[in-house]
Amino acid sequence: MKISIERGTLLKAVGQAQSVVERRNTIPILANVLIEAEGDTVSFRATDLDIEVVDKCAAMVERAGATTVSAVTLHEIVRKLPDGAMVQLTDDGANGRLTVEAGRSNFSLATLPKEDFPVMASAEYDSNFAVPAPVLRRLFDKSKFAISTEETRYYLNGVYMHVADSENGKALRCVATDGHRLARIDAALPPEAGDMPGVIVPRKTVGELRKLLDDDEMQIAVSVSEAKVRFATPEITLTSKVIDGTFPDYTRVIPVGNTRQLEVDAAEFAKAVDRVATVSSERSRAVKLTLEEDKLTLSVNAPDSGAAEEELAVAYNDERLEIGFNAKYLLEIASQVDRENAVFLFNSSGDPTLMREGNDTSAVYVVMPMRV
Amino acid sequence: MKISIERGTLLKAVGQAQSVVERRNTIPILANVLIEAEGDTVSFRATDLDIEVVDKCAAMVERAGATTVSAVTLHEIVRKLPDGAMVQLTDDGANGRLTVEAGRSNFSLATLPKEDFPVMASAEYDSNFAVPAPVLRRLFDKSKFAISTEETRYYLNGVYMHVADSENGKALRCVATDGHRLARIDAALPPEAGDMPGVIVPRKTVGELRKLLDDDEMQIAVSVSEAKVRFATPEITLTSKVIDGTFPDYTRVIPVGNTRQLEVDAAEFAKAVDRVATVSSERSRAVKLTLEEDKLTLSVNAPDSGAAEEELAVAYNDERLEIGFNAKYLLEIASQVDRENAVFLFNSSGDPTLMREGNDTSAVYVVMPMRV
Repeated sequence: MKISIERGTLLKAVGQAQSVVERRNTIPILANVLIEAEGDTVSFRATDLDIEVVDKCAAMVERAGATTVSAVTLHEIVRKLPDGAMVQLTDDGANGRLTVEAGRSNFSLATLPKEDFPVMASAEYDSNFAVPAPVLRRLFDKSKFAISTEETRYYLNGVYMHVADSENGKALRCVATDGHRLARIDAALPPEAGDMPGVIVPRKTVGELRKLLDDDEMQIAVSVSEAKVRFATPEITLTSKVIDGTFPDYTRVIPVGNTRQLEVDAAEFAKAVDRVATVSSERSRAVKLTLEEDKLTLSVNAPDSGAAEEELAVAYNDERLEIGFNAKYLLEIASQVDRENAVFLFNSSGDPTLMREGNDTSAVYVVMPMRV
Repeated sequence: MKISIERGTLLKAVGQAQSVVERRNTIPILANVLIEAEGDTVSFRATDLDIEVVDKCAAMVERAGATTVSAVTLHEIVRKLPDGAMVQLTDDGANGRLTVEAGRSNFSLATLPKEDFPVMASAEYDSNFAVPAPVLRRLFDKSKFAISTEETRYYLNGVYMHVADSENGKALRCVATDGHRLARIDAALPPEAGDMPGVIVPRKTVGELRKLLDDDEMQIAVSVSEAKVRFATPEITLTSKVIDGTFPDYTRVIPVGNTRQLEVDAAEFAKAVDRVATVSSERSRAVKLTLEEDKLTLSVNAPDSGAAEEELAVAYNDERLEIGFNAKYLLEIASQVDRENAVFLFNSSGDPTLMREGNDTSAVYVVMPMRV
């Protein structure tokens, strides 16, 4: 193999690869990226056996071939090369070394045979459709904060992407929850996605997917089967196993009869929650909300260290209500609000509370109260 | 006590205090800042028993008094208050609480009696002189990287500030070393500093001092005794015990007979060292320098992961020399160079190497070689 490739292009491709590679590997070849040169294209492939990413890019291929080298080392080297440099990758297939040359720098990296690299088996997908990058970005960005980190409830360690019935007809829906809070985000269902099976996209895949979604003009090709999900741009293909489990029936958790409505400036609310939470101890960051006619009082009482109270002007005209929440959960939910106003719907101080952005029902959040 | 103070002023004063406070304290009051209001001034005092910082600032004092509260909590609260807010601090001296009010936020913080706060005993200083902030900044910024972190050699855990004979007469000199590398930085001796005793300024004090030195126009009042050192601006007074030990005779370590001179662009050199070091394993980051007629070759050989080599055009016209260094030490020294060229003076591959900036002898660095 002998190729020339522009440093910036190489950095992007290897960057995506090294982020999929796990830092601690018992199988040495999983630390490597598989480089395959053919025609006028080079592909960089990395995997952790659950996720595989392939990044194809244009290069001058003088001699076709393939090899594998440490993804992290190659990435570090390319990152430190000067901007705009042309990089030559040469592997003569004999001495077990890949030569990396740029200007007066010369590196020789240990390789492992390409035959040992575990390429993910290709799959039959039940459903193939395209989604604009900003739509997919919104679905995952607004739901991922609620993903559970409890390994025992592995079926909550991802975002449940599925087809659902919304108020506005069929929707492509993402749901995540950790039992304390829940996010339910809807987008218009692409016509070809009607028969998509529901899948739980793992947390790490959600993170890697995010890197494909920055370009507002990009259409993302999504393919889904019972066992796998694939997201692809013309350059990058991200394939991932999905979590083998059943996502719980989240609909029962979303309250429908909450009638006490509070409308509040989301940014002001978040700042006030952050301030009053300062005095509470790390473990039980409970914030009490006291609702009265057009007035919200946030308060924290931490006997050891002190107390805090802050008032906000809000829109509320129902009975007085006192209800407590974990400050972190309140903050995270409030920070999802893009538009000015957050609308909270309460029932009693023991019931789950619903939040949405203005009157938009395509993004709905639920948070469980805490006793205060 | 009842005072009003502008949020920005308060933030700066409390910020300095909370950075001196140790995060883990067995003595509760050491987590607190002592606030004293009198006349039209409020002072904020914090200590870890080795260092004490006092920040005085202007405030509207409605009722004089003093109390102590958690430095970290007060800092967090003030940080989260809106820019430009006026903050009221009120302590009625009875209920053990300090009230912090700003706008519609209201905090009540647990206090501890001001009588329990350990105020550092005032000292007699042998020497008092003034140094412009940029001069002090250079002395400590360029030497601190070489401070040892080995607790057993406690007398190397700081910067040795003393009066020394330099080529240009008497100098105010800072020296730090960890046995592997050494930095020796000189500045013109202020006339009143001639009888200053040499003191080892501890690492933490050097860090805290740095925050006083950002203003180029500021004169820093320095006071030194055998046991203590004090740095003061009109607002902030930083007093610190010095390390009770004898700094070794560093002059024997600085080579005088090194004649093989290499001149190299410092930035290019640092980048090349950084690149070739990429392939070496974490533990023994040895870089080999091969010097030939106007050519420097940097190389690293790590049998497991690979090899790297880079050439640099340099000025050198002596015998061929091969010498190895710890990559981190080379990088740190090269990054001290403000002007373009670093001048290295070598003897043999087993001897300490000297580095300076161009022909300037007021900043000299020594680094021990490694066998490669």
